[in-house]
Amino acid sequence: MEEKIKRLKELLAETTNLRAASSVLGWDQLVNMPEGGAADRGEQIATIESIHHQKSTADEVGKLLEDLAKYVKDLNPDSDEARLVKVAKRDYDKQTKVPNKYVVEFARVSTIAQSVWEKAKMASDFESFRPHLEKLIDLRRQYADFFKPWDHVYDPLLDDFEPGMKTKEVQEIFNTLRPRLVALIKAISEKEQVDKSFLSYEYPEKDQRDFGIEVISKFGYDWKHGRQDKSAHPFTTSFGLNDVRITTRFKEDYLPTAMFGTMHECGHALYELGINKDYNRTPLADGASMAIHESQSRWWENLIGRSQPFWNHFFPRLQEIFPSQLGNLDAETFFRGVNAVEPSLIRVEADEATYNLHIMLRLEMEIALMEGSMEAKDAPEAWNEKFKDYLGIIPPDDAQGVLQDVHWSFGGFGYFPTYALGNLVSVQLWEKMESEIGNPEELVLNATFEPILVWLRENVHVHGAKYEPQELVQKVTGSKISPEPFIRYLETKFGEIYRL
Amino acid sequence: MEEKIKRLKELLAETTNLRAASSVLGWDQLVNMPEGGAADRGEQIATIESIHHQKSTADEVGKLLEDLAKYVKDLNPDSDEARLVKVAKRDYDKQTKVPNKYVVEFARVSTIAQSVWEKAKMASDFESFRPHLEKLIDLRRQYADFFKPWDHVYDPLLDDFEPGMKTKEVQEIFNTLRPRLVALIKAISEKEQVDKSFLSYEYPEKDQRDFGIEVISKFGYDWKHGRQDKSAHPFTTSFGLNDVRITTRFKEDYLPTAMFGTMHECGHALYELGINKDYNRTPLADGASMAIHESQSRWWENLIGRSQPFWNHFFPRLQEIFPSQLGNLDAETFFRGVNAVEPSLIRVEADEATYNLHIMLRLEMEIALMEGSMEAKDAPEAWNEKFKDYLGIIPPDDAQGVLQDVHWSFGGFGYFPTYALGNLVSVQLWEKMESEIGNPEELVLNATFEPILVWLRENVHVHGAKYEPQELVQKVTGSKISPEPFIRYLETKFGEIYRL
Repeated sequence: MEEKIKRLKELLAETTNLRAASSVLGWDQLVNMPEGGAADRGEQIATIESIHHQKSTADEVGKLLEDLAKYVKDLNPDSDEARLVKVAKRDYDKQTKVPNKYVVEFARVSTIAQSVWEKAKMASDFESFRPHLEKLIDLRRQYADFFKPWDHVYDPLLDDFEPGMKTKEVQEIFNTLRPRLVALIKAISEKEQVDKSFLSYEYPEKDQRDFGIEVISKFGYDWKHGRQDKSAHPFTTSFGLNDVRITTRFKEDYLPTAMFGTMHECGHALYELGINKDYNRTPLADGASMAIHESQSRWWENLIGRSQPFWNHFFPRLQEIFPSQLGNLDAETFFRGVNAVEPSLIRVEADEATYNLHIMLRLEMEIALMEGSMEAKDAPEAWNEKFKDYLGIIPPDDAQGVLQDVHWSFGGFGYFPTYALGNLVSVQLWEKMESEIGNPEELVLNATFEPILVWLRENVHVHGAKYEPQELVQKVTGSKISPEPFIRYLETKFGEIYRL
Repeated sequence: MEEKIKRLKELLAETTNLRAASSVLGWDQLVNMPEGGAADRGEQIATIESIHHQKSTADEVGKLLEDLAKYVKDLNPDSDEARLVKVAKRDYDKQTKVPNKYVVEFARVSTIAQSVWEKAKMASDFESFRPHLEKLIDLRRQYADFFKPWDHVYDPLLDDFEPGMKTKEVQEIFNTLRPRLVALIKAISEKEQVDKSFLSYEYPEKDQRDFGIEVISKFGYDWKHGRQDKSAHPFTTSFGLNDVRITTRFKEDYLPTAMFGTMHECGHALYELGINKDYNRTPLADGASMAIHESQSRWWENLIGRSQPFWNHFFPRLQEIFPSQLGNLDAETFFRGVNAVEPSLIRVEADEATYNLHIMLRLEMEIALMEGSMEAKDAPEAWNEKFKDYLGIIPPDDAQGVLQDVHWSFGGFGYFPTYALGNLVSVQLWEKMESEIGNPEELVLNATFEPILVWLRENVHVHGAKYEPQELVQKVTGSKISPEPFIRYLETKFGEIYRL
């Protein structure tokens, strides 16, 4: 059995290395590649991905996993070996259920759909994207069918991002959350709006970058194992557990974009860098799920980066860097400004209170599209109606409405709910940490982030993908993913900011 | 047969894509990678290279090539299809002659040797490198033996860089060249040295970079298919024929390093970018040999970049950029300064006249080491003796002597002669171009490089690896690689500069 575990790890290392190589090619494409390289790069990535799929669905892997499944029954089920075999088997079973023909077809359709979507969004022309969306919906429904029987057609899609989680669980959480959010936003809307005009002054890119680097260096981002570059859309990518890179984008006339984006991506990177190094080159060297990943990015972006103690510490520094823009402001006003709550059109720019409503709208639409109770052609109108219903505003065009996000164009149905779940989990973890290490606000006020990072590492990061997300949250906090802590957090925070 | 050609191209595209992926990983390692990523990157590249080796030596490839070899006999032997099969078969035969066990062993030994060499060079400590050099010599002799029978043990090594070329041919060329070079250098040494002190003033990196970009943009480097970054040692790399990148390094107290380095790497890149796009993702999408590649880099660096008309055009611009450093100089003085001939220790910084002597010394030593008539332990002393003999100076330490170049540390015996051959070929091609397009100096004087680039494209670049180097030179110039044009060029150029 020793031999078989060893051989399994060799095979998993090979597929993990291929996946890392593909990630390097993808990162380079978005960060460095001259435009002329695009077609060849597509072919190079396709070759690597195709070999990756062959290797990860090879009979030898299946046979080893079957033999080892019996063997690990005698081990502690939470031991690294037992979990490695379990996670590898889960991945293998999922991948082998999907015919190669489907994988190729889906790759082809989604690649074309993405470039069509880019142009469609630019021209706010839903009709040109519609046939591609229809094809993708059809393909994702086919995909779900490979995993029959299921309780809900959306379950297999969600499971790709939140292993083990069911649609019904998410719906229940959202049903509790929704009325509380709506009530909070209504209460805020009746108060005087805070000033945030100073966020739209002119802020030179170089100074923004320097401040971001200063902040995330204090968070604990290790530049010997990472770097920051520019890209059209910010993202984090890892090439193994020792090289985890982030990207950002700058708007010189809107300070929050790069500032909070940098903290956000740093949160993702700190997670990957904190995973047990023994898991390197295995499927455990990954986040537990997208929601857990998002809990980490939101932690540094919102719970820390948009907190009063954070700005009490950092605002004087920010004033030094931008004296003409911020010289006459105080930390309190700045803190309130970066937390202004206001229904807005674009999800990625939404505040903490309205953000989750953007997600709920998308989940409802995805479920309806997958169930077949809504057709793609009706999506723009349904979007606008729901938007009015949830946020009280109607998008002026589809570019700012149904076409705004990239996710559907790559067939990523099932992804959106993880953003909202991540927000909830972040606060659950924060409350638990608070109960264990005392007064984190004091640490933030002094920019002493190490005890906070250490707590996250020991309780969350180190485990990598060893546990499913619900298991992990249960293990750390004592309960499953729940909206209550998040609601408490919002009501307290915005109660103070808006004097509710 | 149509089917078989199609299938062969599919398989070759797959291996070419893998090689490109490996190159992206290698480029990133030298340009971007945080130091913590090194170990994982090694594993990732090893995985890709191992799959590349398996795929390129697969039985299916061998069988297809055998079948197609018969088929292409009926084609024009210079047709693309016939040449593709020929080159693919040559590569396949070479690769399959080398046992996988050897490939793994050589990779292991040379990886370690490179890192030992780096430290040994830093400490000028040959003894620590010696055992690794001995192993590498032994391994390269084993390698040569896989290709028996041969005329000379050095032939199979040379053939990896100069397909089809024999040791004897190179020796004959060098035997003609040597006395003429020695005589020229002696004549120069009896004249008054030109002033070059101004090259060592302070030149800010940013301005150096801007000037370099301006020059190579005029050469015709296409930024939609390339980019320039910094690295410890400059190099050119291509990820297919549509993304060919260069790197450079800057010395703020020595202007020529980045300036001529940038033109040099641009020459390599223009070659790759000029290859027939129909060859993309096949083994024909490559230079004909290292010597032909070097002829292209030296063309732009020396024949153009170190020429009088070039500086008559560009020196006023350089003065604009560096007014305090160069304001009082004239183009003639600058031109003479960048062409100063002087025996020096370091090959990569040698002038055009002495450069090839550095190469001859290395070739003699490599041949003696491979033949076994010299042992590794005697290399430092032999180096110093030969150095005194050729260049009249003795290296003060091994760091500036036998340890100066990286090539032996990765087992690259056979590589050095290509540098000298490249110098010769560049002038042969220049004379041919001159006879066809009239007055290239006039074009250079006006910085109108397009007709020059077009001539290179049509006569050299477009063919890629279709012809062997000697075939190509014969085809373009009407004779094989020959030292006469190069000697004529040097004697004329330095005759004027030094008033011989």
